[in-house]
Amino acid sequence: MALGRLPVALDAMGGDRAPLEIVAGALDAAAEGLPVVLVGPADGSLGDVAALEIWPATEVIGMEEDPGKGVRTKKDSSLVRAAESVRDGRASAMVSAGNTGAAMASALLRMGRLPGVSRPCIATPLPVPGGSHTVMVDAGANADCQPEWLVQFAQMGGAFYSARYGGSGTPRVALLSIGEESSKGNQLVKETRERLESGAGGSAVDFVGNVEGRDLLTGRVDVVVTDGFTGNVALKALEGALKMFMHILGGVMSASEEAKAASEVLLPGLLEAAEALDPESTGGAMLLGVAGVCVISHGSSSRKAIVNAVRVGHDLAARGIVEMLAAAVRSER
Amino acid sequence: MALGRLPVALDAMGGDRAPLEIVAGALDAAAEGLPVVLVGPADGSLGDVAALEIWPATEVIGMEEDPGKGVRTKKDSSLVRAAESVRDGRASAMVSAGNTGAAMASALLRMGRLPGVSRPCIATPLPVPGGSHTVMVDAGANADCQPEWLVQFAQMGGAFYSARYGGSGTPRVALLSIGEESSKGNQLVKETRERLESGAGGSAVDFVGNVEGRDLLTGRVDVVVTDGFTGNVALKALEGALKMFMHILGGVMSASEEAKAASEVLLPGLLEAAEALDPESTGGAMLLGVAGVCVISHGSSSRKAIVNAVRVGHDLAARGIVEMLAAAVRSER
Repeated sequence: MALGRLPVALDAMGGDRAPLEIVAGALDAAAEGLPVVLVGPADGSLGDVAALEIWPATEVIGMEEDPGKGVRTKKDSSLVRAAESVRDGRASAMVSAGNTGAAMASALLRMGRLPGVSRPCIATPLPVPGGSHTVMVDAGANADCQPEWLVQFAQMGGAFYSARYGGSGTPRVALLSIGEESSKGNQLVKETRERLESGAGGSAVDFVGNVEGRDLLTGRVDVVVTDGFTGNVALKALEGALKMFMHILGGVMSASEEAKAASEVLLPGLLEAAEALDPESTGGAMLLGVAGVCVISHGSSSRKAIVNAVRVGHDLAARGIVEMLAAAVRSER
Repeated sequence: MALGRLPVALDAMGGDRAPLEIVAGALDAAAEGLPVVLVGPADGSLGDVAALEIWPATEVIGMEEDPGKGVRTKKDSSLVRAAESVRDGRASAMVSAGNTGAAMASALLRMGRLPGVSRPCIATPLPVPGGSHTVMVDAGANADCQPEWLVQFAQMGGAFYSARYGGSGTPRVALLSIGEESSKGNQLVKETRERLESGAGGSAVDFVGNVEGRDLLTGRVDVVVTDGFTGNVALKALEGALKMFMHILGGVMSASEEAKAASEVLLPGLLEAAEALDPESTGGAMLLGVAGVCVISHGSSSRKAIVNAVRVGHDLAARGIVEMLAAAVRSER
């Protein structure tokens, strides 16, 4: 497909460690044979970027800046220019580790929504022990939601799961709630469940009912649907728990010389487990429902995370993810 | 105080491991000098309960039973009888590891609401590394909430924190959201924040703004206020993460003979850390806003968890927690 040969437009100025770590990631990605261009200042301030192309953008939307205002006023920002390159058919995908709200706003305002999509949403893959993933959608784009939107999140989340992780079956999609029974949940969940049970999700969704917060990391389902407020709180709760465990484990493992020696033995196994759960390895979240591929990487992204995000953006574009998303929503309007 | 001499009414039939483990916990609690009575069948089926008094109740509301219906139809259930004993001034507190919804309904219908309280809520202490706690409120009683209710949750959560964990200062109370800025959050959070910022919480609440899911286990604040849907999802996400982490760690530590030997060295430190984070040690959640003390222990409670829950119920009653909650809400009506 044509999109497979186009480069990925990487926001050089987005992220806590930009531009240095982003540029390093871009160089690594290029070394792997991934087509990538940097979007950012072309004045030499990005350093020696070797053979990488730079698409110029003189402005930067800061991590804490108001997204809407940033996109409106900074028309020559790296985020806006990256989104425009996808809109104009020069890039297959945009990738940013910058201001999430501004990345969404850039993509939405420059690429536009897919026909029939009420609200774009963020799909975030959660790593599950054993190597699989559960995709959470919406992970933070829409704090207040309507049942119809959640039905579309289910459709788009299912299409995303299929494009990203394949498998022959229809993705198992569940609603995040506070009990498995249909009587459990808030009004939004109850109304959404009714719709999904009567088939509103269409043939691309195998709706399996409700799951709870404790099921997010068990791989029990492929896609977990929720509003962006609950999803973001849950996601960050998991991040916080992981960080706390690591901290505690680190303390125990370095408590004495004896403990340090014992830890040497366990370290390879622990590192392997940590690698499998590392958000840096999942390749970032994707904004679903806009007319182009927009991959959002964690603000603290390392070069490794950037390589993975570029690869995911490239692969999903090559697989025609946007057409798949459009079809998933269109089929049930 | 008079309440300090009254016994705690313990639901002998509530919990996944009832009645055996509950009775064992009651015996342990009595051996510690805590005044406790069992509420349940007096036909000898509870086994040899030694010197423990049994207050008879012939019915049981099952773990999966509809709470409202259970309380309405089973008037001689252990839960209903336990709640009545508090209402009638025969017990200082009720404790149950059974059906959470039915425990709440029993307490609410038999004891009644505190004057001015719109909705009772569940306060769950989260253990924080280092030995302190952050209280989450509402952890699951109300799936759909109004801003005024959340203001009362803040007031009651603050009073609960003070009664339970003391400290001289005013409890630091935060709203759970998806960003610290006042612009971040859903409509409920934004409206509640406005009220709390204009002092609606009263003098018992030191409102410090928003926190995120990743702050739940850092001890940054004393009380985190949220709706019961988000709170329950976040709580179970943390539980799930803890379980997954233990599972992974167990796998790494038993992967080889060498690993097993190394793990022996680390085990004491790990067990100590696990003990500090163990939900069994926190003494259970409390229903705030009813006219009596109702402690809700985890469904899988062991005898140890039961002892802790009985102790917490006894202590909070002796400290006059109900009067403190009433005052916290009353002061700002």
